[in-house]
Amino acid sequence: MKKRIRDYGVKIGSLKTGKNNLITDVLGVKVGNLTLKMGDINTGVTAIVPHDENIFKDKLIAASHVINGFGKSVGTIQIEELGTLETPILLTNTLNVGKVSDALIEYMLRKNEDIGITTGTVNPVVFECNDGYLNRIRERKIGFKEVENCIKNAKSIFEEGAVGAGTGMSLYGFKGGIGSSSRVIELNEKEYNLGTLVLTNFGLQKDLVINGINIGRDISKDKLEESLDKGSCIIIIATDIPMSYRQLKRISKRASVGMARTGSYIGNGSGEIVIAFSTANKIRHYEKEDFLNIKIINENKIDRVFRAVAESVEESILNALVRAETLVGRDGNIRYGFIETLNSLNLNIKSE
Amino acid sequence: MKKRIRDYGVKIGSLKTGKNNLITDVLGVKVGNLTLKMGDINTGVTAIVPHDENIFKDKLIAASHVINGFGKSVGTIQIEELGTLETPILLTNTLNVGKVSDALIEYMLRKNEDIGITTGTVNPVVFECNDGYLNRIRERKIGFKEVENCIKNAKSIFEEGAVGAGTGMSLYGFKGGIGSSSRVIELNEKEYNLGTLVLTNFGLQKDLVINGINIGRDISKDKLEESLDKGSCIIIIATDIPMSYRQLKRISKRASVGMARTGSYIGNGSGEIVIAFSTANKIRHYEKEDFLNIKIINENKIDRVFRAVAESVEESILNALVRAETLVGRDGNIRYGFIETLNSLNLNIKSE
Amino acid sequence: MKKRIRDYGVKIGSLKTGKNNLITDVLGVKVGNLTLKMGDINTGVTAIVPHDENIFKDKLIAASHVINGFGKSVGTIQIEELGTLETPILLTNTLNVGKVSDALIEYMLRKNEDIGITTGTVNPVVFECNDGYLNRIRERKIGFKEVENCIKNAKSIFEEGAVGAGTGMSLYGFKGGIGSSSRVIELNEKEYNLGTLVLTNFGLQKDLVINGINIGRDISKDKLEESLDKGSCIIIIATDIPMSYRQLKRISKRASVGMARTGSYIGNGSGEIVIAFSTANKIRHYEKEDFLNIKIINENKIDRVFRAVAESVEESILNALVRAETLVGRDGNIRYGFIETLNSLNLNIKSE
Amino acid sequence: MKKRIRDYGVKIGSLKTGKNNLITDVLGVKVGNLTLKMGDINTGVTAIVPHDENIFKDKLIAASHVINGFGKSVGTIQIEELGTLETPILLTNTLNVGKVSDALIEYMLRKNEDIGITTGTVNPVVFECNDGYLNRIRERKIGFKEVENCIKNAKSIFEEGAVGAGTGMSLYGFKGGIGSSSRVIELNEKEYNLGTLVLTNFGLQKDLVINGINIGRDISKDKLEESLDKGSCIIIIATDIPMSYRQLKRISKRASVGMARTGSYIGNGSGEIVIAFSTANKIRHYEKEDFLNIKIINENKIDRVFRAVAESVEESILNALVRAETLVGRDGNIRYGFIETLNSLNLNIKSE
Repeated sequence: MKKRIRDYGVKIGSLKTGKNNLITDVLGVKVGNLTLKMGDINTGVTAIVPHDENIFKDKLIAASHVINGFGKSVGTIQIEELGTLETPILLTNTLNVGKVSDALIEYMLRKNEDIGITTGTVNPVVFECNDGYLNRIRERKIGFKEVENCIKNAKSIFEEGAVGAGTGMSLYGFKGGIGSSSRVIELNEKEYNLGTLVLTNFGLQKDLVINGINIGRDISKDKLEESLDKGSCIIIIATDIPMSYRQLKRISKRASVGMARTGSYIGNGSGEIVIAFSTANKIRHYEKEDFLNIKIINENKIDRVFRAVAESVEESILNALVRAETLVGRDGNIRYGFIETLNSLNLNIKSE
Repeated sequence: MKKRIRDYGVKIGSLKTGKNNLITDVLGVKVGNLTLKMGDINTGVTAIVPHDENIFKDKLIAASHVINGFGKSVGTIQIEELGTLETPILLTNTLNVGKVSDALIEYMLRKNEDIGITTGTVNPVVFECNDGYLNRIRERKIGFKEVENCIKNAKSIFEEGAVGAGTGMSLYGFKGGIGSSSRVIELNEKEYNLGTLVLTNFGLQKDLVINGINIGRDISKDKLEESLDKGSCIIIIATDIPMSYRQLKRISKRASVGMARTGSYIGNGSGEIVIAFSTANKIRHYEKEDFLNIKIINENKIDRVFRAVAESVEESILNALVRAETLVGRDGNIRYGFIETLNSLNLNIKSE
Repeated sequence: MKKRIRDYGVKIGSLKTGKNNLITDVLGVKVGNLTLKMGDINTGVTAIVPHDENIFKDKLIAASHVINGFGKSVGTIQIEELGTLETPILLTNTLNVGKVSDALIEYMLRKNEDIGITTGTVNPVVFECNDGYLNRIRERKIGFKEVENCIKNAKSIFEEGAVGAGTGMSLYGFKGGIGSSSRVIELNEKEYNLGTLVLTNFGLQKDLVINGINIGRDISKDKLEESLDKGSCIIIIATDIPMSYRQLKRISKRASVGMARTGSYIGNGSGEIVIAFSTANKIRHYEKEDFLNIKIINENKIDRVFRAVAESVEESILNALVRAETLVGRDGNIRYGFIETLNSLNLNIKSE
Repeated sequence: MKKRIRDYGVKIGSLKTGKNNLITDVLGVKVGNLTLKMGDINTGVTAIVPHDENIFKDKLIAASHVINGFGKSVGTIQIEELGTLETPILLTNTLNVGKVSDALIEYMLRKNEDIGITTGTVNPVVFECNDGYLNRIRERKIGFKEVENCIKNAKSIFEEGAVGAGTGMSLYGFKGGIGSSSRVIELNEKEYNLGTLVLTNFGLQKDLVINGINIGRDISKDKLEESLDKGSCIIIIATDIPMSYRQLKRISKRASVGMARTGSYIGNGSGEIVIAFSTANKIRHYEKEDFLNIKIINENKIDRVFRAVAESVEESILNALVRAETLVGRDGNIRYGFIETLNSLNLNIKSE
């Protein structure tokens, strides 16, 4: 089995991880990856399914946060207004967002015959990074069939690295992709889970930091000139801790801490978008009562959730890094796997 | 020729209108409408082309504003981060946004061979309202061919009412659609234009106000019960007045004043999104200089621009109202034209 | 007794008003006005006390919204982060905000011996308009004594017009000041109240609209030239309807609808700030539980609350207008009372 | 002379520092500190004077950003609306903000006889942290005399550590206070400066990271229990690089990267506010022209400014840490100086 960052002796933060150290440690959350690798096409789609029921009928409280908005993600306007998520979250490449949005609409229409007839419409949530360096991105290969398969095959145990939407992505000048992690928080004498999943496509090689060590500086040849960080990073936070929209918004803002600790200064060309949802309260589409009772965390206890987000995002990014292998992409463009590079240089992660 | 609101003796505000009292009074701006009317399909697409050149290579300064975010418009994240517009603006129905986004991407790719190969990606801007009452919205009939035709046929003189994206829309319980208007502002001894275009799909009949008169109250049978305002309104503001992103953001916020004066209280179910752009400064995609010189308006003079926005949006909405004719839509659903309704009731707009 | 706008036959909107048609119809809310009128000094302070208990220990859920930010109000940063209100809300003149903030801090310190010793600090909420046309504003006459008296004398029945913080304010070229109104909403077979209080200091005379009639145009001599709207408007919304921070934020945004209907286009020089709070949930400073249960309104029912805000704000502004009497201020500057002006011109409000 | 972080062999980032590695490397910027240390009173005020002229008459373009809003800073509403700074920036303790605001108003009134008489009012900018652990904060000892002295004594060379507003602050469980740093960026073949100043009052001891090493973990006894990070951090960014409001807003958002790299996860109880201003364009209060020409940086070159912000903020925080000495405050509360603690433990910063 492929090794994750902890298998290299790197332990991020002080909180306990969840059972599988994956976003799916939050009960009900499932992840699907569909990967397309055929010649110059190196792309895919990743689905985060928030719960097993009809998500349109039983929405979840959610919030989004834009770290840097050089991006084309869709669905955040409505999340910010209504504070709810009503579809699976899909990740794909930048130019494929239109097609994947339409596919997600189609998927939701098939599941809900009332949409557009006796009730309103549906808000597809699709986030993206630009895999154009390794993928012939202009071709937009992800359509309905791929999206449907991806959602249907979502599971609790899933692959990381160059899979799904991560297939053609780059991270600190190495091959990047999908990574995940989780943390456990005890509240009211019960264990709650918070998990994160990242689609990583950002960073300059020279900036890479692992657990405080600027290992990228030792590897990179780009020591003098100023390259541009044109990447992106999509961050999904799931939790079963009861939280309001405002509280989920607040925890979303801590995702950038995890990014910064891996060396990023949040580049200009980067679309960095966070979405956080809680599975604890369900908001019914056809609610009949005039009032709802919502359970939320006591704000004085939220610090440990902030810490969990920062740790889990940092670890998710590093998992994406160590799990992604060398890929030769379109027009011969190459991104080397980080671990392979280290091995070839007789370096190791801890760098002492 | 069809009559506009001024032809009924209703003059909105005190500022002078532009030459044609259309958004296209701003030099270079063109508007295209493509209408699909075939049985239960009553929908379309509208394109606002900001200038004649390659908009991706010569971007315009722009800003967006969400009045109420129960909507699925795309493209605003990047506009808010970078303050630029790099595609034509397309309007369509809610469930068609994915396909129209993809069509706009395709259109931009064909115009720009560098996108996704030697330069980054492109940010499609597509706004929407829900025409599901009159249109079989689940079918998503607008694809690349329609989008391309719509953009290519954009002109300075264009139709209002139930055309383009406005084909299946409803306004204050009547037939709604596309409307436009403009104002002239003198600055530095020269005349500048500000024009607006609206896609109207909001409001309860009983709330309709024309020039201060609550004419909807006289017509509506829904005097007691509380209906829900589930519509939307998209507002495009174009101007040749030099303005910064921050200033365009500020004028965007005055669009809701025009809406409020027609009777709206900005309903829960309404996706109300504004975008404003100025043609005065061009931001080159391949800018070589380290610094740019941007011309902006003296903030102490901006009040008259605010006034122009409020007046022009109000008049645009009323133009949509009086220009849209009765339409029998899907499953026999009907929206009556406002003017036809008035005539049948022997009422007139000024209502005295 | 002084007449209010309804006494002139003008009925704003369709919803039922609360018992006294005042913000204090929301149980527990009290309002105090302290007025300073002595020669060139024409200013004051107004206190909105949200409930009878220790507000620092039992905070209320609250949200704020900036319509136009040319203003110096304080306290909104923390309200936006934590979604709670922990002091009375004070209104005063722009240059007096520092002193009034300090007075409110002092007031809170006296009530809470733990602040700054065993617990954190306190977030004073002070909003303002510029009364410099009628008041020698540089003198900053409101200090601790005035603030303490104002809060202590807060009552359910209070004066409107040129009182408290409204003493030196101007509205559409006439004398302005404090106004209030309320609406009743039935939810779950029970009556709930929503009330508003405004501190009005905005608008050009020619723009004034009452119930749809642009009466200002008939009165104003400034028909051609472009004056600047340099005023401000502070809007307080109180309700006993259970609402979350996000929902209160949404209703705050409907306040501008009420303003727009009185003729404002939201001028550049105007500090227009809204704060909304609900008395339905209390957030304890020393909460011991890890989780809280919060009651909120079903979002599908929120439209009637939006309507109530729009109506109540419009009526509050008009109450301020008709209740404020002519005042000769500093250096002989005069603002005429609106009703007195109408009488002298043999006009009446309904203007037919 | 006291040593700064570089004197300990710790070099943050890769960019060149300015002449004095202080915010005042930006020409015209001056900093003043006034320190009150007398028994249980350990507080002060710090002034950042943006340029030598009348700042009210010649405003600078500015933007602010709230990292976490559990704070009571004032002045940001107007900065966000108008994009300009018109007073010196003052830093002080939380409960003293009202008095310091009023003092700054008084200072501005004395410099500008027109304010409140023939022109509008003035927007004081005062930021704060809570020094209540070491200072009898309820006493609010900073008034006009202190503020005036502080501004008048602002200089290019200034002290760091436990001085001015930093007198009673704490940082990662040690004594904190004022720190500063700067970076040089070459644009258009000319050297530009970007400098930062921080008022530090945040972080748990166990979280402290210096240059990637979690040295706090070795020192802290609080390894198991969860303490709360109740601190705050104020960050001032000055630059002579020409930038628009939107661009300054963007660079403000990179300040949190510098914070995160010192170990913070941005705690709940922390008021973390950033303000950035550029000295390159002046916005005249009495501008007569209808249009202005503003010079801004080419957005494609902004990455190096982001990097400069991240590096300079990180180094500023560390300068505050190593410059602040042990202080015994109110009621015998102690914060030990970081360097003294290291020495007593026979540790050194680089920790190998």
